[in-house]
Amino acid sequence: MEFEQVKRQKTEEINRMLCRFLPEESGKEKVLCEAMNYSVAVGGKRLRPMILLEAYKMFGGNDTAAQPFAAALEMIHTYSLVHDDLPAMDNDMYRRGQLTTHAKYGEAMGILAGDGLLNYAFEVMSEAVCEQGANGAKAMSILAKKAGVRGMIAGQTVDLEWTGKPQTKELLDYINERKTSALLCGALMAGAALAGAGEAQLSVLEQVGNYVGLAFQIKDDILDVIGDESKLGKPLHSDEKNEKMTYVTLIGVEQAEETVREFSNRAVELLDTLPYENPFLKELLLSLITREY
Amino acid sequence: MEFEQVKRQKTEEINRMLCRFLPEESGKEKVLCEAMNYSVAVGGKRLRPMILLEAYKMFGGNDTAAQPFAAALEMIHTYSLVHDDLPAMDNDMYRRGQLTTHAKYGEAMGILAGDGLLNYAFEVMSEAVCEQGANGAKAMSILAKKAGVRGMIAGQTVDLEWTGKPQTKELLDYINERKTSALLCGALMAGAALAGAGEAQLSVLEQVGNYVGLAFQIKDDILDVIGDESKLGKPLHSDEKNEKMTYVTLIGVEQAEETVREFSNRAVELLDTLPYENPFLKELLLSLITREY
Repeated sequence: MEFEQVKRQKTEEINRMLCRFLPEESGKEKVLCEAMNYSVAVGGKRLRPMILLEAYKMFGGNDTAAQPFAAALEMIHTYSLVHDDLPAMDNDMYRRGQLTTHAKYGEAMGILAGDGLLNYAFEVMSEAVCEQGANGAKAMSILAKKAGVRGMIAGQTVDLEWTGKPQTKELLDYINERKTSALLCGALMAGAALAGAGEAQLSVLEQVGNYVGLAFQIKDDILDVIGDESKLGKPLHSDEKNEKMTYVTLIGVEQAEETVREFSNRAVELLDTLPYENPFLKELLLSLITREY
Repeated sequence: MEFEQVKRQKTEEINRMLCRFLPEESGKEKVLCEAMNYSVAVGGKRLRPMILLEAYKMFGGNDTAAQPFAAALEMIHTYSLVHDDLPAMDNDMYRRGQLTTHAKYGEAMGILAGDGLLNYAFEVMSEAVCEQGANGAKAMSILAKKAGVRGMIAGQTVDLEWTGKPQTKELLDYINERKTSALLCGALMAGAALAGAGEAQLSVLEQVGNYVGLAFQIKDDILDVIGDESKLGKPLHSDEKNEKMTYVTLIGVEQAEETVREFSNRAVELLDTLPYENPFLKELLLSLITREY
């Protein structure tokens, strides 16, 4: 079976798994659970849970122990989108052609559904840790840090603060490492930790995730300038319109493409130093960088 | 030493402890950490962490293992206030005479600081669980549930949905049990779980917390009608102004006071069935109900 077909199958499996971990739409708080589940349903590629599950496999995991963590990671990713879309933040009414959570359920429910997803992610993980013990605790701790005030939330804060102001490459890297790389690092590291990987291996995976995230984000910036609108499914030149500084505005398309190649090579080299392999995971990480949409 | 003096001392100890667990205000994300720490500093009575620490002692805990959980619980309580104060929710500019987080740092930072506190609470607890193992995992799981979509967030959702609409006593109890009792139950149960309490004892504490929370909230409603403004430090009749249904509007001051007495008696009776005691904790719980401010 070719890569794309396998990926589609895995995505569908993850969608079914997510449904099992999301809250039932019942009780007086039904609308809250509906808004949470709607938010997750609007999302799409399930990259982060897929990477977590594949990293778990790569390090020898062969049961369902990683599933609650994969589901929780997708909830964390989703809550960050729901809150980013709020009027006080990016003020977006649509995502992937569908109404954003606050556009559909009102602003208060957008805030509460985001809070609900973040809290529920830790509820699901806490319960799994009670059953699984040390490896679970380590994985949860990794995800909490990567999603937290030195990780994803820091990236969002600094991005908001600096939008429309002149930026340096250093600042851009800071933001990309936190807004994009952090959860990818978390996915790789948490999956491996659940299978018992040690600190040295987690540190290699952290670097892999970092390079992949940076390359992914630069690729995003490039596609926003020279991509194919029909493939991307969204209009080009949004960064220019939002006066957003990117790698492309800083160093131009050609050098930006060179940087993507460089970072993706480094990621693969690092991945190859590990004593385990998972060809699908490797291809998945590379596909994020070579993609045309 | 009399109760009030001991309580003041304990509050100051908790304030010092909180400072040790909150994020350092450094790095490019400094303003985020400032907004988080400001939010916690504005808060005051530290009831929830105090109850958690005292429950831990009551069940034989005699070290610092409960501290990260007590700090995390206060972060969770604080994030809920920060998000409740947002313009899309209660739209409050002041709390205890100081600017609310979004009023001081802007709405986007109000959202992010709340997210940061909720995530950081679990970051701090996850790290503690890695060191402490099973009892820590149980405590974290309890707090996650009580703060979550069937607990505190559900209460906030239903409260928002029904404000200004006719309510029943059943609905009022539903909201109070989740908005007020849930975190008090969590404090009692998590503290006891950290000291190794079993399910039957946790279940008794859950009932105690429930009665105390309900009595506390009804007392709040009573004080809003017949309290002393100078002692309360806030104007009376806010519920009436906000067209808020309360126990007082439902059954009148006299019967509401009877209910407070009844619930507080039941809480004490339940507490007395446990094979441990902590006179300070008992007095603290009763003081929430007999208070005049």
